[in-house]
Amino acid sequence: MTAFETLNRHRSIRKYTNQPVGEDLLNRILTAGTRASTTGNMQVYSIVVSKDSVRKAALAPAHFNQPSITNAPVVLTFCADFNRFNKWCRQRNAEPGYDNFLSFVTGAIDALLVAQNVCIAAEDEGLGICYFGTTTYNADKIIETLNLPKGVVPVTTVTLGFSDEKPELTDRLPLQAVVHEETYQDYSPEVIDALYREKEGMPLYQGFVKEHNKETLAQVFTDVRYKKADNEHFSKVLLQVLKNQGFFQD
Amino acid sequence: MTAFETLNRHRSIRKYTNQPVGEDLLNRILTAGTRASTTGNMQVYSIVVSKDSVRKAALAPAHFNQPSITNAPVVLTFCADFNRFNKWCRQRNAEPGYDNFLSFVTGAIDALLVAQNVCIAAEDEGLGICYFGTTTYNADKIIETLNLPKGVVPVTTVTLGFSDEKPELTDRLPLQAVVHEETYQDYSPEVIDALYREKEGMPLYQGFVKEHNKETLAQVFTDVRYKKADNEHFSKVLLQVLKNQGFFQD
Repeated sequence: MTAFETLNRHRSIRKYTNQPVGEDLLNRILTAGTRASTTGNMQVYSIVVSKDSVRKAALAPAHFNQPSITNAPVVLTFCADFNRFNKWCRQRNAEPGYDNFLSFVTGAIDALLVAQNVCIAAEDEGLGICYFGTTTYNADKIIETLNLPKGVVPVTTVTLGFSDEKPELTDRLPLQAVVHEETYQDYSPEVIDALYREKEGMPLYQGFVKEHNKETLAQVFTDVRYKKADNEHFSKVLLQVLKNQGFFQD
Repeated sequence: MTAFETLNRHRSIRKYTNQPVGEDLLNRILTAGTRASTTGNMQVYSIVVSKDSVRKAALAPAHFNQPSITNAPVVLTFCADFNRFNKWCRQRNAEPGYDNFLSFVTGAIDALLVAQNVCIAAEDEGLGICYFGTTTYNADKIIETLNLPKGVVPVTTVTLGFSDEKPELTDRLPLQAVVHEETYQDYSPEVIDALYREKEGMPLYQGFVKEHNKETLAQVFTDVRYKKADNEHFSKVLLQVLKNQGFFQD
Protein backbone atom coordinates (compact mmCIF):
# COMPACT_ATOMS: atom_id res chain seq x y z
CA MET A 1 0.00 0.00 0.00
CA THR A 2 1.24 3.53 -0.65
CA ALA A 3 1.69 5.78 2.36
CA PHE A 4 -1.24 7.87 1.09
CA GLU A 5 -3.56 4.89 1.08
CA THR A 6 -2.41 3.92 4.57
CA LEU A 7 -3.00 7.44 5.90
CA ASN A 8 -6.42 7.76 4.30
CA ARG A 9 -7.63 4.38 5.57
CA HIS A 10 -6.83 5.04 9.22
CA ARG A 11 -9.43 3.96 11.76
CA SER A 12 -8.92 3.63 15.51
CA ILE A 13 -9.15 -0.07 16.40
CA ARG A 14 -10.34 -0.94 19.88
CA LYS A 15 -11.00 -4.69 19.49
CA TYR A 16 -8.18 -7.08 18.70
CA THR A 17 -7.93 -10.78 17.85
CA ASN A 18 -5.71 -12.82 20.15
CA GLN A 19 -3.08 -13.23 17.43
CA PRO A 20 0.17 -12.01 18.98
CA VAL A 21 2.43 -9.43 17.31
CA GLY A 22 5.73 -11.19 16.60
CA GLU A 23 9.06 -9.85 17.82
CA ASP A 24 10.46 -9.26 14.30
CA LEU A 25 7.34 -7.46 13.13
CA LEU A 26 7.28 -5.25 16.21
CA ASN A 27 10.98 -4.40 15.87
CA ARG A 28 10.50 -3.51 12.22
CA ILE A 29 7.63 -1.20 13.18
CA LEU A 30 9.56 0.44 16.04
CA THR A 31 12.62 0.90 13.83
CA ALA A 32 10.49 2.71 11.24
CA GLY A 33 9.27 4.82 14.17
CA THR A 34 12.79 5.94 14.99
CA ARG A 35 13.25 7.30 11.46
CA ALA A 36 10.98 10.23 12.40
CA SER A 37 12.58 13.67 12.65
CA THR A 38 14.05 14.36 16.09
CA THR A 39 15.33 17.62 17.56
CA GLY A 40 19.05 17.94 16.84
CA ASN A 41 19.10 14.15 16.41
CA MET A 42 19.08 13.90 20.21
CA GLN A 43 16.28 11.28 20.23
CA VAL A 44 14.93 12.56 23.54
CA TYR A 45 12.14 9.99 23.83
CA SER A 46 11.60 6.40 24.95
CA ILE A 47 9.04 3.74 24.09
CA VAL A 48 7.91 1.29 26.77
CA VAL A 49 6.53 -1.91 25.25
CA SER A 50 4.08 -3.71 27.57
CA LYS A 51 2.82 -7.15 26.49
CA ASP A 52 2.56 -8.98 29.80
CA SER A 53 -1.05 -9.29 30.92
CA VAL A 54 -0.20 -8.38 34.52
CA ARG A 55 1.53 -5.21 33.37
CA LYS A 56 -1.34 -4.26 31.03
CA ALA A 57 -3.80 -4.81 33.89
CA ALA A 58 -1.68 -2.52 36.07
CA LEU A 59 -1.77 0.16 33.36
CA ALA A 60 -5.53 -0.12 32.75
CA PRO A 61 -6.75 2.09 35.65
CA ALA A 62 -4.61 4.98 34.36
CA HIS A 63 -6.60 4.65 31.13
CA PHE A 64 -9.93 4.59 33.02
CA ASN A 65 -10.09 0.81 32.47
CA GLN A 66 -10.89 1.08 28.79
CA PRO A 67 -11.00 -2.62 27.82
CA SER A 68 -8.68 -2.33 24.80
CA ILE A 69 -5.68 -1.73 27.09
CA THR A 70 -5.88 -5.28 28.44
CA ASN A 71 -7.37 -6.73 25.24
CA ALA A 72 -4.58 -5.46 22.95
CA PRO A 73 -1.51 -7.70 22.53
CA VAL A 74 0.83 -4.68 22.74
CA VAL A 75 0.59 -1.42 24.69
CA LEU A 76 3.15 1.23 23.75
CA THR A 77 3.80 4.16 26.10
CA PHE A 78 5.65 7.00 24.35
CA CYS A 79 7.62 9.24 26.69
CA ALA A 80 9.54 12.49 26.54
CA ASP A 81 12.93 11.31 27.84
CA PHE A 82 15.93 13.45 28.78
CA ASN A 83 17.14 10.89 31.35
CA ARG A 84 19.27 8.94 28.87
CA PHE A 85 20.65 12.10 27.25
CA ASN A 86 21.44 13.71 30.62
CA LYS A 87 23.25 10.56 31.80
CA TRP A 88 25.33 10.56 28.61
CA CYS A 89 26.18 14.25 29.05
CA ARG A 90 27.29 13.76 32.66
CA GLN A 91 29.49 10.79 31.68
CA ARG A 92 31.12 13.00 29.06
CA ASN A 93 32.04 15.94 31.25
CA ALA A 94 29.12 18.02 29.93
CA GLU A 95 26.55 19.73 32.18
CA PRO A 96 23.04 19.23 30.75
CA GLY A 97 20.67 22.21 30.98
CA TYR A 98 17.44 20.39 30.24
CA ASP A 99 15.56 20.65 33.54
CA ASN A 100 13.07 23.15 32.15
CA PHE A 101 9.70 23.42 30.41
CA LEU A 102 11.07 23.94 26.90
CA SER A 103 12.99 20.68 27.17
CA PHE A 104 9.84 18.82 28.18
CA VAL A 105 8.08 20.21 25.10
CA THR A 106 11.06 19.21 22.93
CA GLY A 107 10.94 15.66 24.27
CA ALA A 108 7.16 15.52 23.85
CA ILE A 109 7.42 16.61 20.21
CA ASP A 110 10.08 13.94 19.58
CA ALA A 111 7.91 11.27 21.24
CA LEU A 112 4.78 12.19 19.28
CA LEU A 113 6.46 12.18 15.86
CA VAL A 114 7.85 8.73 16.63
CA ALA A 115 4.42 7.58 17.85
CA GLN A 116 2.74 8.62 14.61
CA ASN A 117 5.45 6.91 12.53
CA VAL A 118 4.97 3.73 14.56
CA CYS A 119 1.20 3.87 13.96
CA ILE A 120 1.59 4.31 10.21
CA ALA A 121 4.18 1.52 10.00
CA ALA A 122 1.85 -0.74 11.99
CA GLU A 123 -1.15 0.05 9.80
CA ASP A 124 0.95 -0.53 6.70
CA GLU A 125 1.61 -4.05 8.09
CA GLY A 126 -2.11 -4.68 8.48
CA LEU A 127 -2.28 -4.01 12.22
CA GLY A 128 -4.80 -1.78 13.97
CA ILE A 129 -3.89 0.99 16.42
CA CYS A 130 -5.61 3.29 18.89
CA TYR A 131 -4.30 6.37 20.73
CA PHE A 132 -5.17 7.05 24.38
CA GLY A 133 -5.44 10.67 25.47
CA THR A 134 -5.65 9.43 29.06
CA THR A 135 -1.85 9.30 29.28
CA THR A 136 -1.55 13.04 29.99
CA TYR A 137 -4.43 12.82 32.51
CA ASN A 138 -2.88 10.09 34.60
CA ALA A 139 0.81 10.50 33.88
CA ASP A 140 1.50 10.14 37.63
CA LYS A 141 0.00 6.64 37.73
CA ILE A 142 1.81 5.58 34.55
CA ILE A 143 5.14 6.83 35.93
CA GLU A 144 4.63 4.59 38.95
CA THR A 145 3.52 1.53 36.97
CA LEU A 146 6.33 1.75 34.43
CA ASN A 147 9.07 2.92 36.86
CA LEU A 148 9.78 6.06 34.86
CA PRO A 149 12.73 7.92 36.42
CA LYS A 150 13.29 11.68 36.66
CA GLY A 151 13.59 13.24 33.21
CA VAL A 152 10.91 10.96 31.75
CA VAL A 153 7.22 11.89 31.24
CA PRO A 154 4.67 9.71 29.38
CA VAL A 155 2.98 11.68 26.60
CA THR A 156 0.76 9.25 24.74
CA THR A 157 -0.19 5.57 24.63
CA VAL A 158 -0.94 3.42 21.61
CA THR A 159 -2.45 -0.06 21.55
CA LEU A 160 -1.43 -2.38 18.74
CA GLY A 161 -2.77 -5.64 17.40
CA PHE A 162 -4.67 -7.41 14.64
CA SER A 163 -8.11 -5.89 14.26
CA ASP A 164 -11.25 -7.74 15.27
CA GLU A 165 -13.63 -5.02 14.06
CA LYS A 166 -14.30 -3.01 10.91
CA PRO A 167 -15.32 0.49 11.97
CA GLU A 168 -16.40 3.12 9.44
CA LEU A 169 -14.05 5.95 8.53
CA THR A 170 -14.55 8.77 11.07
CA ASP A 171 -15.93 12.11 9.87
CA ARG A 172 -13.73 15.21 9.68
CA LEU A 173 -14.56 18.90 9.40
CA PRO A 174 -14.15 20.32 5.87
CA LEU A 175 -10.44 20.96 5.11
CA GLN A 176 -10.97 24.75 5.12
CA ALA A 177 -11.99 24.51 8.80
CA VAL A 178 -8.42 23.71 9.83
CA VAL A 179 -6.34 25.35 7.07
CA HIS A 180 -5.53 29.08 6.95
CA GLU A 181 -4.00 30.87 3.95
CA GLU A 182 -0.92 32.98 4.80
CA THR A 183 -2.19 34.10 8.22
CA TYR A 184 -4.89 32.99 10.65
CA GLN A 185 -8.36 33.91 9.41
CA ASP A 186 -10.59 34.07 12.46
CA TYR A 187 -14.07 32.56 12.26
CA SER A 188 -17.28 34.58 12.04
CA PRO A 189 -20.44 33.05 13.59
CA GLU A 190 -21.69 32.28 10.06
CA VAL A 191 -18.49 30.46 9.18
CA ILE A 192 -18.66 28.39 12.41
CA ASP A 193 -22.25 27.43 11.55
CA ALA A 194 -21.26 26.40 8.03
CA LEU A 195 -18.21 24.39 9.14
CA TYR A 196 -20.06 22.36 11.79
CA ARG A 197 -23.41 21.95 9.95
CA GLU A 198 -22.65 18.58 8.35
CA LYS A 199 -21.21 17.10 11.56
CA GLU A 200 -24.16 18.25 13.65
CA GLY A 201 -26.58 16.68 11.18
CA MET A 202 -25.07 13.19 11.40
CA PRO A 203 -27.28 10.51 12.99
CA LEU A 204 -24.28 9.39 15.12
CA TYR A 205 -23.98 12.79 16.78
CA GLN A 206 -27.71 13.41 16.99
CA GLY A 207 -27.82 10.12 18.88
CA PHE A 208 -25.15 11.41 21.31
CA VAL A 209 -27.22 14.51 22.02
CA LYS A 210 -30.37 12.46 22.66
CA GLU A 211 -28.59 9.82 24.75
CA HIS A 212 -27.14 12.44 27.10
CA ASN A 213 -30.29 14.56 27.19
CA LYS A 214 -28.49 17.63 25.86
CA GLU A 215 -29.63 20.49 23.63
CA THR A 216 -26.55 20.57 21.40
CA LEU A 217 -23.61 18.39 20.40
CA ALA A 218 -21.24 20.99 21.86
CA GLN A 219 -22.82 20.39 25.28
CA VAL A 220 -21.95 16.69 25.02
CA PHE A 221 -18.31 17.80 24.89
CA THR A 222 -18.44 20.52 27.57
CA ASP A 223 -20.82 18.78 30.00
CA VAL A 224 -20.08 15.07 29.53
CA ARG A 225 -16.89 14.18 27.70
CA TYR A 226 -14.34 16.96 28.38
CA LYS A 227 -15.51 18.87 31.43
CA LYS A 228 -13.94 22.04 32.82
CA ALA A 229 -13.54 20.61 36.35
CA ASP A 230 -11.80 17.47 35.03
CA ASN A 231 -9.52 19.48 32.75
CA GLU A 232 -8.53 21.76 35.62
CA HIS A 233 -7.90 18.85 37.95
CA PHE A 234 -5.76 16.98 35.44
CA SER A 235 -3.91 20.18 34.49
CA LYS A 236 -2.75 20.45 38.09
CA VAL A 237 -1.74 16.78 38.17
CA LEU A 238 0.23 17.13 34.94
CA LEU A 239 2.04 20.30 36.04
CA GLN A 240 2.97 18.55 39.30
CA VAL A 241 4.26 15.60 37.27
CA LEU A 242 6.48 17.93 35.24
CA LYS A 243 7.85 19.38 38.49
CA ASN A 244 8.42 15.93 40.02
CA GLN A 245 10.12 14.65 36.88
CA GLY A 246 12.51 17.60 36.85
CA PHE A 247 11.18 19.89 34.13
CA PHE A 248 10.53 22.96 36.29
CA GLN A 249 13.83 23.68 38.06
CA ASP A 250 14.37 27.45 38.07
CA MET B 1 5.97 3.39 -2.43
CA THR B 2 4.77 1.53 0.66
CA ALA B 3 4.41 3.53 3.86
CA PHE B 4 7.34 1.55 5.28
CA GLU B 5 9.62 2.58 2.45
CA THR B 6 8.54 6.21 2.81
CA LEU B 7 9.22 6.18 6.56
CA ASN B 8 12.60 4.50 6.20
CA ARG B 9 13.78 6.90 3.47
CA HIS B 10 13.08 10.07 5.44
CA ARG B 11 15.71 12.79 5.28
CA SER B 12 15.29 16.41 6.34
CA ILE B 13 15.48 18.56 3.21
CA ARG B 14 16.75 22.11 3.61
CA LYS B 15 17.35 23.08 -0.05
CA TYR B 16 14.46 23.25 -2.49
CA THR B 17 14.15 23.81 -6.25
CA ASN B 18 11.94 26.74 -7.28
CA GLN B 19 9.24 24.37 -8.56
CA PRO B 20 6.03 25.42 -6.79
CA VAL B 21 3.79 22.97 -4.94
CA GLY B 22 0.45 22.99 -6.76
CA GLU B 23 -2.84 23.70 -4.98
CA ASP B 24 -4.30 20.24 -5.67
CA LEU B 25 -1.19 18.44 -4.49
CA LEU B 26 -1.02 20.52 -1.32
CA ASN B 27 -4.70 19.96 -0.57
CA ARG B 28 -4.30 16.23 -1.06
CA ILE B 29 -1.38 16.24 1.38
CA LEU B 30 -3.21 18.34 3.96
CA THR B 31 -6.32 16.16 3.67
CA ALA B 32 -4.22 13.06 4.39
CA GLY B 33 -2.89 15.03 7.37
CA THR B 34 -6.38 15.43 8.80
CA ARG B 35 -6.91 11.65 8.80
CA ALA B 36 -4.58 11.44 11.82
CA SER B 37 -6.10 10.45 15.16
CA THR B 38 -7.48 13.44 17.07
CA THR B 39 -8.68 13.66 20.67
CA GLY B 40 -12.42 12.92 20.79
CA ASN B 41 -12.51 13.90 17.09
CA MET B 42 -12.41 17.53 18.24
CA GLN B 43 -9.65 18.44 15.73
CA VAL B 44 -8.22 21.04 18.09
CA TYR B 45 -5.46 22.21 15.72
CA SER B 46 -4.95 24.54 12.78
CA ILE B 47 -2.45 24.65 9.94
CA VAL B 48 -1.30 28.01 8.60
CA VAL B 49 0.00 27.73 5.02
CA SER B 50 2.46 30.51 4.12
CA LYS B 51 3.65 30.73 0.50
CA ASP B 52 3.94 34.47 -0.03
CA SER B 53 7.59 35.56 0.01
CA VAL B 54 6.83 38.60 2.16
CA ARG B 55 5.12 36.41 4.77
CA LYS B 56 7.95 33.86 4.72
CA ALA B 57 10.47 36.67 5.19
CA ALA B 58 8.42 37.91 8.15
CA LEU B 59 8.50 34.41 9.68
CA ALA B 60 12.24 33.90 9.10
CA PRO B 61 13.56 35.78 12.20
CA ALA B 62 11.43 33.56 14.47
CA HIS B 63 13.36 30.64 12.96
CA PHE B 64 16.72 32.37 13.50
CA ASN B 65 16.80 33.22 9.78
CA GLN B 66 17.51 29.68 8.70
CA PRO B 67 17.56 30.11 4.89
CA SER B 68 15.17 27.23 4.13
CA ILE B 69 12.22 29.19 5.57
CA THR B 70 12.41 31.74 2.73
CA ASN B 71 13.81 29.26 0.21
CA ALA B 72 10.98 26.70 0.62
CA PRO B 73 7.87 27.15 -1.54
CA VAL B 74 5.59 26.31 1.40
CA VAL B 75 5.93 26.94 5.13
CA LEU B 76 3.38 25.16 7.33
CA THR B 77 2.84 26.29 10.92
CA PHE B 78 1.00 23.68 12.99
CA CYS B 79 -0.89 25.08 15.97
CA ALA B 80 -2.77 23.79 19.00
CA ASP B 81 -6.15 25.50 18.43
CA PHE B 82 -9.08 25.65 20.85
CA ASN B 83 -10.29 28.97 19.41
CA ARG B 84 -12.51 27.40 16.74
CA PHE B 85 -13.87 24.77 19.12
CA ASN B 86 -14.55 27.35 21.88
CA LYS B 87 -16.39 29.61 19.40
CA TRP B 88 -18.53 26.68 18.29
CA CYS B 89 -19.33 25.76 21.91
CA ARG B 90 -20.37 29.32 22.78
CA GLN B 91 -22.61 29.51 19.70
CA ARG B 92 -24.27 26.29 20.86
CA ASN B 93 -25.10 27.27 24.40
CA ALA B 94 -22.19 25.26 25.81
CA GLU B 95 -19.53 26.70 28.15
CA PRO B 96 -16.07 25.49 27.10
CA GLY B 97 -13.64 24.60 29.91
CA TYR B 98 -10.46 24.52 27.87
CA ASP B 99 -8.51 27.48 29.25
CA ASN B 100 -6.00 25.25 31.02
CA PHE B 101 -2.68 23.48 30.59
CA LEU B 102 -4.11 20.03 29.84
CA SER B 103 -6.08 21.49 26.94
CA PHE B 104 -2.92 23.06 25.49
CA VAL B 105 -1.22 19.66 25.63
CA THR B 106 -4.27 18.03 24.00
CA GLY B 107 -4.17 20.57 21.15
CA ALA B 108 -0.40 20.17 20.80
CA ILE B 109 -0.73 16.38 20.50
CA ASP B 110 -3.43 16.78 17.84
CA ALA B 111 -1.28 19.27 15.91
CA LEU B 112 1.83 17.06 16.00
CA LEU B 113 0.08 13.90 14.79
CA VAL B 114 -1.36 15.88 11.87
CA ALA B 115 2.08 17.37 11.17
CA GLN B 116 3.69 13.96 10.93
CA ASN B 117 0.92 12.67 8.66
CA VAL B 118 1.40 15.70 6.40
CA CYS B 119 5.15 15.04 6.24
CA ILE B 120 4.68 11.40 5.31
CA ALA B 121 2.05 12.24 2.69
CA ALA B 122 4.39 14.88 1.23
CA GLU B 123 7.33 12.50 1.12
CA ASP B 124 5.15 9.85 -0.49
CA GLU B 125 4.46 12.42 -3.25
CA GLY B 126 8.20 12.95 -3.80
CA LEU B 127 8.46 16.19 -1.83
CA GLY B 128 11.06 16.98 0.84
CA ILE B 129 10.25 18.29 4.31
CA CYS B 130 12.04 19.75 7.30
CA TYR B 131 10.84 20.38 10.87
CA PHE B 132 11.80 23.52 12.80
CA GLY B 133 12.14 23.23 16.57
CA THR B 134 12.43 27.02 16.69
CA THR B 135 8.62 27.32 16.74
CA THR B 136 8.40 26.65 20.49
CA TYR B 137 11.34 29.02 21.13
CA ASN B 138 9.79 31.98 19.38
CA ALA B 139 6.08 31.22 19.58
CA ASP B 140 5.48 34.86 20.62
CA LYS B 141 6.93 36.20 17.35
CA ILE B 142 5.03 33.65 15.25
CA ILE B 143 1.76 34.53 16.98
CA GLU B 144 2.31 38.15 15.97
CA THR B 145 3.32 37.40 12.38
CA LEU B 146 0.44 34.98 11.74
CA ASN B 147 -2.21 36.87 13.76
CA LEU B 148 -2.92 33.87 15.99
CA PRO B 149 -5.80 34.69 18.36
CA LYS B 150 -6.29 33.58 21.96
CA GLY B 151 -6.66 29.81 22.18
CA VAL B 152 -4.03 29.23 19.47
CA VAL B 153 -0.35 28.36 20.06
CA PRO B 154 2.12 27.36 17.32
CA VAL B 155 3.78 24.04 18.11
CA THR B 156 5.92 23.15 15.12
CA THR B 157 6.82 24.36 11.64
CA VAL B 158 7.46 22.30 8.52
CA THR B 159 8.92 23.47 5.21
CA LEU B 160 7.79 21.70 2.06
CA GLY B 161 9.05 21.61 -1.51
CA PHE B 162 10.86 19.63 -4.19
CA SER B 163 14.31 18.68 -2.98
CA ASP B 164 17.45 20.23 -4.42
CA GLU B 165 19.82 18.09 -2.35
CA LYS B 166 20.46 14.42 -1.62
CA PRO B 167 21.55 14.13 1.99
CA GLU B 168 22.61 10.82 3.52
CA LEU B 169 20.30 8.98 5.89
CA THR B 170 20.90 10.33 9.42
CA ASP B 171 22.31 7.99 12.07
CA ARG B 172 20.16 6.73 14.94
CA LEU B 173 21.03 5.12 18.26
CA PRO B 174 20.57 1.32 18.32
CA LEU B 175 16.86 0.44 18.73
CA GLN B 176 17.44 -0.92 22.26
CA ALA B 177 18.54 2.57 23.35
CA VAL B 178 14.98 3.89 23.04
CA VAL B 179 12.87 0.77 23.62
CA HIS B 180 12.13 -0.69 27.07
CA GLU B 181 10.55 -4.09 27.70
CA GLU B 182 7.53 -4.03 30.05
CA THR B 183 8.88 -1.25 32.29
CA TYR B 184 11.60 1.37 32.06
CA GLN B 185 15.06 -0.16 32.40
CA ASP B 186 17.38 2.58 33.59
CA TYR B 187 20.82 2.89 32.04
CA SER B 188 24.06 1.89 33.77
CA PRO B 189 27.22 3.84 32.83
CA GLU B 190 28.39 0.82 30.83
CA VAL B 191 25.14 0.71 28.86
CA ILE B 192 25.34 4.44 28.10
CA ASP B 193 28.91 3.94 26.81
CA ALA B 194 27.82 1.05 24.62
CA LEU B 195 24.76 2.85 23.19
CA TYR B 196 26.64 6.03 22.22
CA ARG B 197 29.93 4.43 21.11
CA GLU B 198 29.09 4.15 17.41
CA LYS B 199 27.71 7.69 17.20
CA GLU B 200 30.73 9.20 18.98
CA GLY B 201 33.04 7.41 16.56
CA MET B 202 31.49 8.89 13.43
CA PRO B 203 33.71 11.31 11.46
CA LEU B 204 30.75 13.73 11.23
CA TYR B 205 30.53 14.07 15.00
CA GLN B 206 34.28 13.97 15.58
CA GLY B 207 34.35 16.93 13.18
CA PHE B 208 31.77 18.77 15.33
CA VAL B 209 33.90 18.27 18.43
CA LYS B 210 37.04 19.57 16.67
CA GLU B 211 35.26 22.49 15.02
CA HIS B 212 33.91 23.76 18.32
CA ASN B 213 37.11 23.04 20.26
CA LYS B 214 35.32 20.71 22.69
CA GLU B 215 36.44 17.59 24.54
CA THR B 216 33.33 15.53 23.88
CA LEU B 217 30.33 15.43 21.54
CA ALA B 218 28.01 15.89 24.54
CA GLN B 219 29.68 19.25 25.19
CA VAL B 220 28.74 20.36 21.66
CA PHE B 221 25.12 19.91 22.72
CA THR B 222 25.34 21.42 26.21
CA ASP B 223 27.77 24.29 25.44
CA VAL B 224 26.95 25.18 21.82
CA ARG B 225 23.70 23.85 20.39
CA TYR B 226 21.21 23.53 23.28
CA LYS B 227 22.48 25.67 26.14
CA LYS B 228 20.99 25.86 29.63
CA ALA B 229 20.64 29.66 29.57
CA ASP B 230 18.83 29.59 26.21
CA ASN B 231 16.52 26.77 27.32
CA GLU B 232 15.65 28.64 30.50
CA HIS B 233 15.02 31.87 28.63
CA PHE B 234 12.79 30.24 26.03
CA SER B 235 10.97 28.22 28.71
CA LYS B 236 9.90 31.51 30.28
CA VAL B 237 8.83 32.93 26.92
CA LEU B 238 6.80 29.81 26.13
CA LEU B 239 5.06 29.74 29.52
CA GLN B 240 4.18 33.42 29.09
CA VAL B 241 2.80 32.60 25.63
CA LEU B 242 0.57 29.90 27.13
CA LYS B 243 -0.70 32.44 29.66
CA ASN B 244 -1.29 35.11 27.03
CA GLN B 245 -3.08 32.67 24.74
CA GLY B 246 -5.43 31.61 27.54
CA PHE B 247 -4.11 28.23 28.67
CA PHE B 248 -3.37 29.15 32.31
CA GLN B 249 -6.62 30.55 33.72
CA ASP B 250 -7.02 29.23 37.24
